[in-house]
This record gives sequence, structure tokens and C-alpha cells, in this order.
Amino acid sequence: MLKVDLNCDMGESFGLYQMGNDEGMMQYITSANIACGFHAGDPHVIKRTIELCKSYDVGVGVHPGFPDLVGFGRRHMNVTPSEIQDYVIYQMGAIREFASMYNLPVQHCKLHGALFMMAMEDKKIAKAFLEVISKINPKMIVFALNQSEVAIVGKEMGIPIAYEGYADREHTDTGSIVLTRTGPSLTDVNKMAERVVRMVKERKVITYDGKEAEINVQTVCIHGDTEGAPLLAKAITEALMRNEIEVTSIKNLINQ
Amino acid sequence: MLKVDLNCDMGESFGLYQMGNDEGMMQYITSANIACGFHAGDPHVIKRTIELCKSYDVGVGVHPGFPDLVGFGRRHMNVTPSEIQDYVIYQMGAIREFASMYNLPVQHCKLHGALFMMAMEDKKIAKAFLEVISKINPKMIVFALNQSEVAIVGKEMGIPIAYEGYADREHTDTGSIVLTRTGPSLTDVNKMAERVVRMVKERKVITYDGKEAEINVQTVCIHGDTEGAPLLAKAITEALMRNEIEVTSIKNLINQ
Amino acid sequence: MLKVDLNCDMGESFGLYQMGNDEGMMQYITSANIACGFHAGDPHVIKRTIELCKSYDVGVGVHPGFPDLVGFGRRHMNVTPSEIQDYVIYQMGAIREFASMYNLPVQHCKLHGALFMMAMEDKKIAKAFLEVISKINPKMIVFALNQSEVAIVGKEMGIPIAYEGYADREHTDTGSIVLTRTGPSLTDVNKMAERVVRMVKERKVITYDGKEAEINVQTVCIHGDTEGAPLLAKAITEALMRNEIEVTSIKNLINQ
Amino acid sequence: MLKVDLNCDMGESFGLYQMGNDEGMMQYITSANIACGFHAGDPHVIKRTIELCKSYDVGVGVHPGFPDLVGFGRRHMNVTPSEIQDYVIYQMGAIREFASMYNLPVQHCKLHGALFMMAMEDKKIAKAFLEVISKINPKMIVFALNQSEVAIVGKEMGIPIAYEGYADREHTDTGSIVLTRTGPSLTDVNKMAERVVRMVKERKVITYDGKEAEINVQTVCIHGDTEGAPLLAKAITEALMRNEIEVTSIKNLINQ
Repeated sequence: MLKVDLNCDMGESFGLYQMGNDEGMMQYITSANIACGFHAGDPHVIKRTIELCKSYDVGVGVHPGFPDLVGFGRRHMNVTPSEIQDYVIYQMGAIREFASMYNLPVQHCKLHGALFMMAMEDKKIAKAFLEVISKINPKMIVFALNQSEVAIVGKEMGIPIAYEGYADREHTDTGSIVLTRTGPSLTDVNKMAERVVRMVKERKVITYDGKEAEINVQTVCIHGDTEGAPLLAKAITEALMRNEIEVTSIKNLINQ
Repeated sequence: MLKVDLNCDMGESFGLYQMGNDEGMMQYITSANIACGFHAGDPHVIKRTIELCKSYDVGVGVHPGFPDLVGFGRRHMNVTPSEIQDYVIYQMGAIREFASMYNLPVQHCKLHGALFMMAMEDKKIAKAFLEVISKINPKMIVFALNQSEVAIVGKEMGIPIAYEGYADREHTDTGSIVLTRTGPSLTDVNKMAERVVRMVKERKVITYDGKEAEINVQTVCIHGDTEGAPLLAKAITEALMRNEIEVTSIKNLINQ
Repeated sequence: MLKVDLNCDMGESFGLYQMGNDEGMMQYITSANIACGFHAGDPHVIKRTIELCKSYDVGVGVHPGFPDLVGFGRRHMNVTPSEIQDYVIYQMGAIREFASMYNLPVQHCKLHGALFMMAMEDKKIAKAFLEVISKINPKMIVFALNQSEVAIVGKEMGIPIAYEGYADREHTDTGSIVLTRTGPSLTDVNKMAERVVRMVKERKVITYDGKEAEINVQTVCIHGDTEGAPLLAKAITEALMRNEIEVTSIKNLINQ
Repeated sequence: MLKVDLNCDMGESFGLYQMGNDEGMMQYITSANIACGFHAGDPHVIKRTIELCKSYDVGVGVHPGFPDLVGFGRRHMNVTPSEIQDYVIYQMGAIREFASMYNLPVQHCKLHGALFMMAMEDKKIAKAFLEVISKINPKMIVFALNQSEVAIVGKEMGIPIAYEGYADREHTDTGSIVLTRTGPSLTDVNKMAERVVRMVKERKVITYDGKEAEINVQTVCIHGDTEGAPLLAKAITEALMRNEIEVTSIKNLINQ
């Protein structure tokens, strides 16, 4: 039976500011990428998000970003590999401490925003990041784009890599995400759900520019701040079920 | 043989901003209270400070403060006990993750500035703080003032408490620290050193207003940003040696 | 004919984080209290808010708060009068520069959250704040609670004071706001609107604990983050109209 | 008689953190570039710096930077021209308000760090920045590198441009600054002073890679955080005097 993990960025609220619908998404997903207080999130939000993960039996993931709250971590910053290592260690520790208060392990790590894209594209940054993961816990699962530096270097280092596809974003022909909205974009949740099914079942996706491309997807990201995200998550869950694809924890798809 | 631990706030630099003389102090102290990025410190500073602890075999302590960098965590904030718990967990995790990169345990916790004073004086905050410590690691040593709420509640909870005296600050007759400089203040390092010796040997101190008071001191704090702090540390170390008082890790003074 | 000004806190969004419904409120109000980037707001949000003020011909007000984004400026901080002066000057300048890009004057100043309450209750802080206002522009209107230190000291100094009442909060018998929700709270927008009418027309209000109290109200605050705030604003506007009370700029109620 | 302005970055302290020796430099310089609370500085530091400018009759300049305190504004950030405009307006206002408390005008603007370099090299950013300056005050003097986009576009727009050379940094053959220390670097203050004299008198400089280059210098920057900066400033002042070059306000060199 085919299997897939569903992940969502979580805990992106800050103080009185609400972002996304964390509780609404938890019932559908199997992996939560929890913001760590740099690009989003704060200590109280982290705690609440960890409690939700506990309640809904969702895997706890660290979602480190740049120290750029006003830019939501989406702006590239000219940061050294060594600075990135320290940012990841710091944010990892914060999440891990809250998780351990609830006897939960940290299951995976997914970088956020500009830091994610920089690591995917720059071998030095990918290496610096993965060295830290390897030292902290060589069995921690790392989410990465198909053909990215993180995936390539991670495989070489023996770090378990989970390939990610997107429910609500377009893809390139290398399986990368399209951040600029240059291509046709889906808005129909059923069509988005079908695309997810096809990525998992046939390992194929129509790219942003209309080509047919191969893609390897073990976890599908649904952005919680996409309008109607819970409806999209519901449509995906139902479409996967109809196609006899099991939604399950990434741990059951990856050899750690 | 009498024993005492020497502690110093460390890692209070931030970005390009230098604070204190961390390396100059490390050779004299046995416990480092490491700022965690809220009132001072940043991820890179934390790493360097942990490396210094490793090199000099100094105990790693967490030094959580308020999220008030511009006020250096010295301004009281009307924060709830629950918010304080989350601030402590977050900062604890950050330090612990760096420490574990170097296979070092987190030995102790000393609150910083306004958060320190609020916990010492307010039973609810003391309790909230100690509940978190107890959950994280019930053997973690907590630094506290004589007769403080943290000391009283901590003893009740079975948390190892280390009583703290000050090399470069005045004391009240309950053994508390005088933050306002209302009394006569020592500037002669030899006199400060003699006062430290007397606190340890005779358990007595002359208070800021000239009274003789009892005090119980297992760890002595030297502020690293006091001018000439390394000279003071040297004078204290030599005076303790002359008086056959061993400077040793707080672990050797406290039953954990 | 009776007159009243309607004010609302504005520009409290931050980066991607949305707060309130600024555009929805602008059509109803005559004075906007614009967050300045300390407790809320950022440079881009300030610009958009000033543009809205221009479009809707709403008076630009500065809304300075504490540098506590995660606490939304609602936590008392032990800040000196001199620090408060500098915080107000800084935030004033930021708003004024954006306003002057659109040829708009800064009409009024209303402190935010914990800073507001501290100034209302503490004569030293009230004085420090008003000295700054007086130096910057002695004709700038200051919003204050009835019987507050800011109102008393401001009147003495000849600074134009606008007395404020609340559409969506309870009052004490001195005309102060009740921040803790200890009393019966109105939820019916029509009843809230009637209360506003009565405050303006009869200068009377039923306090949070059921007493009848006198109140002097020249501007009424509607909190933009109250659920259904635009509906409340609409109900108030209509009720005022039915009672032949003109909603007009605070400039037309105050001798500057 | 030849004339030159001497400028220095000022007000870069933050809270308890000290940076540079502001008072030590003030006696030598004619223009102060004051940090605005983004990459460095805070409201209290700004006030003290403005007071120093008043005491020493030094021109007040705005020194806007990126919102990256931990990186001291030295890290390139992928910020849009529109975001940069808003950052400049905000920081300009903060400085202007403090200056106007002391009846001082804002004389000039010099961008900081990564924002400076990005504006010098990127025409779109240069334009966005200069449009804002032109709106705020078309007579405000802008400091720029020889042959930079800011200088070129500024001249076209009729904005007064002051060309800058460096006392303590190397130059390229276009008169630009060398941020990476790849070339031979002067450490002898007298040689640095002679180089300054030559830049002003002969409009020539030996570049970091040993070439002879033309350079047009109306203001010379001395970095206050360079070790021994006041000694360097003294040496420069004396060398200029010996060569009958007057150190004077940039206003006396530029037609506004």
C-alpha cells in the first residue's frame, strides 16, 4: 500500500498576532513544522503547539528560520554557514525542551523560508546545516526538495531525507517549489488534491509551465496560511483515502 | 576543609557588542551563568561561551532573563507565572542544545536581573519557576539568595539550592543583594576578597548599612562587567587559598 | 449641537500579521491612534495607515507604546520617566515623518496599553510625558482619562486635553477604564451605542459595578480588535445621528 | 583654500552596550552619522548623541540601516525598494524629532552597512532612496561613493551629493570602499593621515591593489570603532592643518 506523510507549518502566531488555523489543521496532518521564535512563534505559542501535537499525535518538527520577524523569515540574508549552524542549534534546543516537557521526541527538521531555499541551493549551507543535524541526532528526518543540495548531501551523509511536494504551490521540472507566482496556479481544492494523489501514485506532476515532470514525494506540505487550508487538507485526505494511499507518519516511510 | 564555588555571568555580548571579559574570568571561576539571547547573548556568543566552559572545565549554567535587550533584563515586567515558565523553558533549551554539542550537561540555573529579583520575592513566581526546573531536571542546582522564596520553596520541593553571596555588591541583613547603591560600597579588591573569606569562613557579613548579619554562602558571584573583574577574581582566589578554602565546583558542595 | 470625536487604535498589524480591520473602521472614525513600531506596527504598516487617514480625512494621532512586541505593550515595565520621554520622542518622529510625506499634521497623541495606564496614574510619568509633548508641539491634543494625572497636569500646563470614554469597555466611578473584566460587560452593539450617547448627552455612565457616575467625554474609543468592531462603529454612528450629536474631528471640540 | 568635511558614525551604542568613543571623536569631526535604532542605537543613545552634536557644533546626519541588530546591519537582506523607502522614512523621523528638540536641523544622510553598499550598486534602490530624500528635503546632503549609483542618480535629481573617502579603509580604482580586507592595509596613523591629505589635495589615492587612482573627496569617514580612532582623527586634523586644508562643515563645500 502506498503511504504519504502530510506536513504543515505550525505555531506561527506571535503574541496577540494569530497566524493560520493550527487546531483546524492538526486533525489532518502527521507532521508539524513548529516555528521557533525567530521568523515567527514565541515561547507560549510553542508550548500550545506542542500540546496540540501531543493531543493529535502529530510528529514534532523543528522549523528554524532567520531572525527576521517583520519579514517572516522570507528575505534572503547574507548569513555565514557558521551563523546558520548556530541559529539552527539555538532554535532546535528551544523546541526540543518544550517537546521533552511532554515526553515527545523531535522527529524532523524543515528549514523555513529564505533559509530553506538557501540551503536547498547552496552546497556549503546545506553541508553546514546537515553537520549540525548529524551531531544533534543523525536519525532526525530532514525535509528537502527533490534534487536539492540538502537531499544530495544528506543522502551522502546517511541522514534520513524526506522528499517534499506541495499541495498549494507550483513545482519546477526538478521538483523544486515555485515561490514566484509566474505560472498557472490551482485554486480548486479537488484539483489540488488530485495533483497530490498523482505525485504520490504516479510520481508525476505538471509543472508551473505546463510540462510533465517526475517527482518523488514522501511528505506533502499544506501551507496553513493558505486560505481555506483545512478544507484543502480535508479534500487531500479524502482523495488519498479513495486512492488507497495511507496518510501516516513520515517515520513509517523512511528508514532511520 | 571549607569549600566554595565562584560564579560569574557570562556570554552577555551581543553581535558586535562586547560585554565583560569572559576569557579573563574563566580561569578563576567554577560556574558560568550563560545569557540565553533574551536580555543578552546571541547564538554565536552562546557557542563561544560553551567552548570556553569546556576549555576551562567550568560548570555550564543557564541564565534566563526577560525579553528586554535594550534594558538588559533589568526592568521589572508584569509577566505572568505561566509566561515566565515558558521563557525559562525556551532559554534552557537553547543553552542545553549548545552544551550537548560539546557533551556538557547543564549544571545549574540562575535567573537574571529583574526576573531573578521577582522570583526571589514573589512566591508564585518562585513556584512557577521551580516547577519547570523540577520537570526538566530535578537535580539541577538553582542559585538563590538566603531567605528568598526560591530558596524556601526549592528546599521544600527537594531541588538542590545553592546560596549565593556577592563579591562586588552590598548585602542586606537577610543576606539579600542591594541593587540600589545606597550604602557604603567597597572598591578595594583586597577588602572585597576578605569579605568573601569571612562570608564563607564565619558565615557573617557587614551589611550595606553597617550591621553585622549572618549569611550562608555556597557560591560567590563576581560580576564580569565590574571594572577590573579579573583582578578582583584573582584577589578572591588568592585570599581563599591563604585561608585554606577550596574553590571547587558547586556540585561538590551540594547534595543533588 | 453636541459633538463628539470617535477614535480607534490603528496600524497594529506587523509584517505578515494582521490585526484589526483598519479600512473597515476608517469610514466611521475621526481620529486614528497609529501604532509606531514598538508594541505593534512597522514602517510599511505605518505608511499604509497614514494613506488611509489621508483617504478618509481622519486625524493622525501618535500611539506610543513600550518596546514589547510579544506582550503588545500591555505589560507594565519599570521604565524611568526619562526613558519614557525618549520612547515618545522616537515614536512621535517616526509617525510625523510619514505624515509629512502626505502633508498631514500630527493632530493628537494617545499613549498605549501599560504606558497609557502608568501615565494616567503616576504624576511623575504624566509630567515627563507632557513636557515632551509641550516641547514638540504645545497645541497637540492629548487623549486622557477623566481625573487622570495626565488630564490634571496637562490642564495646568495648558496642553489641550481630550477626555476619553469607551464604547467597548467598562468604566469606574472616576471615569477610568476597567482593564480587568470583573464587571458585567456589554455585548449588544445597540446597548453599547446607547451608552455612548448617554455619556455624551447626559455626561453619565453606569460603572462596571452598577453605579451611576459622571463622565466627561469628548472622544470615544472603539477598539478595532473587538470582534465586529465595524458593526459597533456603525451602530454608534447611527445612534449619535438619531440623537443629533455630530461626529466631528476632535479639533472642533477642543480649544488648542 | 582647500576644504574637507570629516564624518564619523555615531550613536552606535545600544542599552548597556558601548560602541565607539563618541565624545572622544566629536572634537575632531564636522559631521555625525547617527544610528537610528535599527542596526544600532536606541532612543536614549540618540538623545545623548544629539546633545553631543549640539555641544560640539557638529552637523546631524541620519544613518539608516537594516533592522538587523545582531548583524549590525552588515548583512545584505533581500529587501524591496519600497521597504527600503519606509525604513529610511521611519529612521529619518526618529532622528529629526530628537534633533528638533534641540533646534538642530538634519543636515545629511548616509546609509549604513549593507544598505549603503546595496544603494551604491543597485540603481533601483538608489532611486527609491533618493526619491524619499527628495520628498523629505531636497536640500539634504547625501554621502556617496565616487561613481556610485547614488552619486549618479542623485546628481541627475539635483540632490546635493558629498563624495566620501576613507581614512581607515582601502579604496578600489573607482573610488569605492574595499570591505573585504584583501589588500595591504595601513595601520600607521601618520600614513593614513597623509593618504587623506593626498585624496583632498591631489585627488589621488593608492588602491588596495597598489594602483594609482583618481578620487573626489569632500568628506572623509573615520570609523569610530577603529582602534585608536581619536588618535587617528587627531593625526588627520593636524596633517590637514599643516597642508592648509580647512576642516569645515560639509555645508560649506556643497551647493545645496
